Amino acid sequence: MKALEERILREGKVLPGDILKVSGFLNHQLDVDFLMQMGEEIARLYAGAGVNKILTIEASGIALAVAAAAHLHVPVVFAKKNATTNLSDDTLYSARVHSYTHEKDYNVIVSKEFLYPEDRVLLVDDFLAVGNALHGMIEIVNQAGAEVCGAAIAIEKGYQHGGDDLRAAGIRVESLAVIDSMENGHIVFRR
Amino acid sequence: MKALEERILREGKVLPGDILKVSGFLNHQLDVDFLMQMGEEIARLYAGAGVNKILTIEASGIALAVAAAAHLHVPVVFAKKNATTNLSDDTLYSARVHSYTHEKDYNVIVSKEFLYPEDRVLLVDDFLAVGNALHGMIEIVNQAGAEVCGAAIAIEKGYQHGGDDLRAAGIRVESLAVIDSMENGHIVFRR
Repeated sequence: MKALEERILREGKVLPGDILKVSGFLNHQLDVDFLMQMGEEIARLYAGAGVNKILTIEASGIALAVAAAAHLHVPVVFAKKNATTNLSDDTLYSARVHSYTHEKDYNVIVSKEFLYPEDRVLLVDDFLAVGNALHGMIEIVNQAGAEVCGAAIAIEKGYQHGGDDLRAAGIRVESLAVIDSMENGHIVFRR
Repeated sequence: MKALEERILREGKVLPGDILKVSGFLNHQLDVDFLMQMGEEIARLYAGAGVNKILTIEASGIALAVAAAAHLHVPVVFAKKNATTNLSDDTLYSARVHSYTHEKDYNVIVSKEFLYPEDRVLLVDDFLAVGNALHGMIEIVNQAGAEVCGAAIAIEKGYQHGGDDLRAAGIRVESLAVIDSMENGHIVFRR
């Protein structure tokens, strides 16, 4: 998506530790009009794929998931990162995910009330690097006996190969921008 | 908002510990078409109020904030609940908030990059009970020297008086549904 690539070049900051900071429009402050355009593009890509539900992980995936769902007219389920007092264990699907950003493991949980074998699920997230969050979501969809239609990502770090590994495994992965290199702070997109 | 009251009566579950569970459309699974209607109503209520930014707190406030912002055409800033490795302390506004749901205190933080003295901020959240989250957001807006235009809430527990205390303090609080009693699992809305 050309507009996203331009936005990343204009506002993204490459920080030490392989971090691309886009908190001005995607992560901390949200440019909602622009997010809705990204959601529209995701809906265009997955039109006709039979998606009836979107799954994402709190917190930074929620906004893009809502934007996509507003155009696909399907509900969003967001996996939670910790069990809350409102959810008890035997009613949950869960997976263990390692976060490189926060340097720790966490559980992602989804209530069994909200995923069924007949669901055709689109996975949505803001970033894709090695693919840990996506693998966690896929595990949860599999636990529910539901089907993964594919994944829609805002920004994929192509050089970390998480997306390509999933594609090689037969999963459709659509990223609105794929970065093939950020060496020396210079961002190169995949063509 | 009549449609929200009807939805709460139809799907909401009153659980021990004064919990209203609406995770089927607002908290864990999101009915995005319905959320967009709520966002449209918030935009109608605050049309002409000069709002140029929405502030919410991750994670469950984000979806409603995005829905409101999509109709008000302003950016959303979401306060984060823990400092991440992407943010360093001297660049932050922060406030301490007590969560009764999770029975703990947490910090909410907003990068100084995203709030300015000239901002006119609408606070958005899914629930309002005693008002701790709103007070935390107001403290952050005050730290930035910005102005609070008001708050927009999906569900207010009116009998906990957080909303009325804020109204008495001169802050505009618009809740799409105000519950005045949940005794014995019977939900009574404010007229």
